[in-house]
Amino acid sequence: MPNAAPDNLTTFWDGLDGVRRAVNERLEAWLPQATQPPCRLHQAMRYSVFAGGKRVRPILAVLACRAVGGTDARAMPAACAIECIHTYSLIHDDLPAMDDDDFRRGRPSNHKAFDEATAILAGDALLTVAFDIISRQMDKPGVASRVVQEVAAAAGWAGMVGGQMADLEAEGADPDADTLHFIHAHKTGALIRASVLCGGLAGGAAEPQLTALGTYARCVGLAFQIADDLLDETATSEQLGKTAGKDKAAKKLTYPALYGLEASRTEARRLAAEAIGALDPLGPEAAPLARLAEFIVSRSS
Amino acid sequence: MPNAAPDNLTTFWDGLDGVRRAVNERLEAWLPQATQPPCRLHQAMRYSVFAGGKRVRPILAVLACRAVGGTDARAMPAACAIECIHTYSLIHDDLPAMDDDDFRRGRPSNHKAFDEATAILAGDALLTVAFDIISRQMDKPGVASRVVQEVAAAAGWAGMVGGQMADLEAEGADPDADTLHFIHAHKTGALIRASVLCGGLAGGAAEPQLTALGTYARCVGLAFQIADDLLDETATSEQLGKTAGKDKAAKKLTYPALYGLEASRTEARRLAAEAIGALDPLGPEAAPLARLAEFIVSRSS
Repeated sequence: MPNAAPDNLTTFWDGLDGVRRAVNERLEAWLPQATQPPCRLHQAMRYSVFAGGKRVRPILAVLACRAVGGTDARAMPAACAIECIHTYSLIHDDLPAMDDDDFRRGRPSNHKAFDEATAILAGDALLTVAFDIISRQMDKPGVASRVVQEVAAAAGWAGMVGGQMADLEAEGADPDADTLHFIHAHKTGALIRASVLCGGLAGGAAEPQLTALGTYARCVGLAFQIADDLLDETATSEQLGKTAGKDKAAKKLTYPALYGLEASRTEARRLAAEAIGALDPLGPEAAPLARLAEFIVSRSS
Repeated sequence: MPNAAPDNLTTFWDGLDGVRRAVNERLEAWLPQATQPPCRLHQAMRYSVFAGGKRVRPILAVLACRAVGGTDARAMPAACAIECIHTYSLIHDDLPAMDDDDFRRGRPSNHKAFDEATAILAGDALLTVAFDIISRQMDKPGVASRVVQEVAAAAGWAGMVGGQMADLEAEGADPDADTLHFIHAHKTGALIRASVLCGGLAGGAAEPQLTALGTYARCVGLAFQIADDLLDETATSEQLGKTAGKDKAAKKLTYPALYGLEASRTEARRLAAEAIGALDPLGPEAAPLARLAEFIVSRSS
């Protein structure tokens, strides 16, 4: 990480490019080749996985693994699996029957680049391959089984899918704090929390370390979603690589809609501080996780 | 199983109702309650899981587990997980962008009873909960991890999803034996094979037993799909509980379309005989698996 200025969060973030490259290299190896039939399915899976995602979740997993003394290689299966699940959720969310979005990361969304049937199946295959990667690439079956448990709970009805359903149901409804918190904690929070916990599990974390990581992850997950809500209101479509202001247009329940911009920024910063405080028991190895929490919130202001 | 006539396959099949009840009771416990929010998601999941399915895959898992000396309880997590995956695949296959079917098992299909977005999410949640059930309910992590591997491979790009993609691509194309075999082996064959193998794994099968079960499963899976193709051509919609003759109308590539009705019946019977022969090393405990192979083929003639 040459010339990393300690007060420059962007430099810290760019300095994580080595992790991104390692994650991409593993995804390249663990996903089906585009030349293998049915080619169209595998092309559609790769189209969205290699669309220039920021790899926030894999980076969280790797940094959490490092924070408890694990090597990057140990974190890779969980990191890549969770990125596959995140990607599948974007593909399905963009479908006409769901959020109906034609663009994602500056390119046509999956069902526009391919077609609806292919997009549904590519999403299904990415969700499934996540569990294949964890169970096949993690060398300790006991840890693999625990990671499958965490990831499945975070991705399914008790997590991400439940949050997306609640989000769809809340569209057009009057703003309501309980519903908003349910959506945020489930739709994005659960998988971000799983990224951190599974990185820790892969690195051999002891229970008190997992507790510390769990608190950090819960706060970072909420802060991340508030930052995302703020960006949707304040950034341009060009900056986002997707349609901006869409939440407002669809009357989505968001943090700024309920509490206003300034109170939302304050809450995001408060959550980041709480996340950083939770890392105390982990010592200096956890410093990059603290920087990441700062970076995530800095996106919003 | 009172009054079970040895030469009456229907009585044998009905005699498996105890297994069906046990599977339903476990699914009832392991799926989210319909009263728990987001209720609509959980209602949609349960609507399709408890729609009167024949539970062929769970029964295969339980009988394979028994064949190697395991208790029914050991087989239940894999059995229920695979039924959840089978159900999700039906929900997604029925979507307008896929096979566009308004009826399933004599009732409105999931997206007609609810809506498209809910059906997509209910499918996603059922796929995910399958891995939750395996990793949480199997008491040996090493076996759980292996079962996750088998199920993920059978359900994903290298199995069921790949087969469904190939099936969609082949619609309207000239009949071609290689494509047909690819579709059958992947779309239905892989998950049926996984049912048998995972039942065996849960029951503690040794490698030679798994090899025997694998051959049995491959043959039964193909026979099952040929029987299904035949039923679509020869049965009425009322008998099927779904639209009959749909494959032909959609110019789907089927066994009867390629080889004719009589040759298809002969091949299904040959495969059942090969399946039964493969069970020899397992001894008398495997007799019910043999009966099941006979029953599956008898559906076609």
